[in-house]
Amino acid sequence: MNITIAGAGAMGSRFGLMLHEAGNQVVFVDGWKDHVDAINKNGLQVNHDGVEKVVKIPAYLQDQVPSDFKSDLIILFTKSLGLEGMLHSLKDTIDKDTRVLCLLNGFGHDEKIKKYVPEENIYIGNTMWTSDLEGPGKVKLMGWGTVNFKNWVPGHEESAHEIAKVLSDAGLGAEYTENILEVMYKKICLNATLNCMCALLECNAADFGDTSTAHTILTDIITEFAAVAKAEGVNLDAQEAIHFIETKAYNRETLGLHYPSMHQDLIQNNRLTEIDSINGAIAKKGRKYGIPTPYSNLVTNLIHAKEELRKAK
Amino acid sequence: MNITIAGAGAMGSRFGLMLHEAGNQVVFVDGWKDHVDAINKNGLQVNHDGVEKVVKIPAYLQDQVPSDFKSDLIILFTKSLGLEGMLHSLKDTIDKDTRVLCLLNGFGHDEKIKKYVPEENIYIGNTMWTSDLEGPGKVKLMGWGTVNFKNWVPGHEESAHEIAKVLSDAGLGAEYTENILEVMYKKICLNATLNCMCALLECNAADFGDTSTAHTILTDIITEFAAVAKAEGVNLDAQEAIHFIETKAYNRETLGLHYPSMHQDLIQNNRLTEIDSINGAIAKKGRKYGIPTPYSNLVTNLIHAKEELRKAK
Repeated sequence: MNITIAGAGAMGSRFGLMLHEAGNQVVFVDGWKDHVDAINKNGLQVNHDGVEKVVKIPAYLQDQVPSDFKSDLIILFTKSLGLEGMLHSLKDTIDKDTRVLCLLNGFGHDEKIKKYVPEENIYIGNTMWTSDLEGPGKVKLMGWGTVNFKNWVPGHEESAHEIAKVLSDAGLGAEYTENILEVMYKKICLNATLNCMCALLECNAADFGDTSTAHTILTDIITEFAAVAKAEGVNLDAQEAIHFIETKAYNRETLGLHYPSMHQDLIQNNRLTEIDSINGAIAKKGRKYGIPTPYSNLVTNLIHAKEELRKAK
Repeated sequence: MNITIAGAGAMGSRFGLMLHEAGNQVVFVDGWKDHVDAINKNGLQVNHDGVEKVVKIPAYLQDQVPSDFKSDLIILFTKSLGLEGMLHSLKDTIDKDTRVLCLLNGFGHDEKIKKYVPEENIYIGNTMWTSDLEGPGKVKLMGWGTVNFKNWVPGHEESAHEIAKVLSDAGLGAEYTENILEVMYKKICLNATLNCMCALLECNAADFGDTSTAHTILTDIITEFAAVAKAEGVNLDAQEAIHFIETKAYNRETLGLHYPSMHQDLIQNNRLTEIDSINGAIAKKGRKYGIPTPYSNLVTNLIHAKEELRKAK
């Protein structure tokens, strides 16, 4: 299958590599010039579960994608703030046969994608894989993950299953997931609590987890998310989501010393965050359904204030 | 009048000095040994609106107050976290004739005071005076202010007026204030928004005011305060309180470059904050009256998390 990885950061590089190794024709598109140049010059340098390798995969700079370039599948892996720019760059390459799979964190991406892609070609979901971009053209891949998604418009289940098979054949553990919103809500709980708190309080997951108010903060935010989910007909088990975070994310032996991506963005790199696709998206849904979302409002507003105070870009 | 200033920090020193200069017998009691020693050895060194002076006022270290020591009036000016310890130190000096005026920031101090003082001897209010403690035994007093308070138990208005006269005779601009809760709610709005946000986001008032989300954050918190005030029969005009902060506190020519006291406590000096007497007290009142206080809850929990992460003491 001809596959474009739109956003070849840590996660995009992993997907591109694994799909390439499974025999697909993969192309990277990314907005970071040094990264694209390094991939084209030296190949993608990978440490894959301890094995070093160099893989030749063509890469285009985002605004230099040839207009006659076509792909069967575009996998969107930008940061949420880069999504619209990426779609704009690819718009001439998207036709009625181009399927687009969005695996970005958070909610609300469909509104942007719909402007560029016919709804029946959109597939939405998320992934539990991880990876680290260590520098231009260089990634480190460890561990194991899954991908869950479904077709955005009913009637395209067969096509979703076909895409899932391509991903799973590449070892990406993809599954067509009927209740995709439930899976996405579960994942967003982690982003909306730990990610935000570690950025706001400038700490790692374990140190946040050690505070006496962490449990209440998690409970308040996730209970609010569950109310919004319910209004969408999605069953989010707040207790289970809280338990998952408290037993997995704080452990100093495993993930606890990790600084979540929003900390990396805002504190380490002074970059704007994805807050509007996470807590901000829940606040927006809340307004739509008439569900009060004070915790999401305040967290979103505090992160935006902090972005501005740090002059994040 | 024999007056004990219980808590001889910046504000206590101002009140003690002005009451002493008006002819009252003033004694300081404080928990900071260097400060007490400096006052006793060298006198209180004051810069009062640009005039330097040294004033001899006796000072006791908090746990060395003689048990036969008596005063007509104790003015409480500790930090809220130091209040109970101070009352405990003074308990043997408090009898049925000792009136106690509490001018601490925030709410909820009455619960502690009632354990040590008969309710009919309690007077509660606040002050808009400012002052700076520049070091042990050294204060800088500038500007002008007011004091508002009333008797805690009805029927003691005459005594409240008498205390107000003593303070006003000393130039402290004191007023018996029937709707004292309204005045206290107005003042707490500033502490609950600007103080907390500057501590949480580690910025000054003007920089916080410049963020695009400051107005919404203020509005959300103060609207919640107004709902709790209403349940107590107090009319807090949220719009007026917001307008006051936005027009006075952000101005870079006057107060805007100021780092509020919670920033001084938590960020500059790694001390525990008074959050439980401010946003925490409103959350507690909310639970009592069945008013949801999500904004107060989250701000309180975030500040406590930050105290713990910084190992504040």
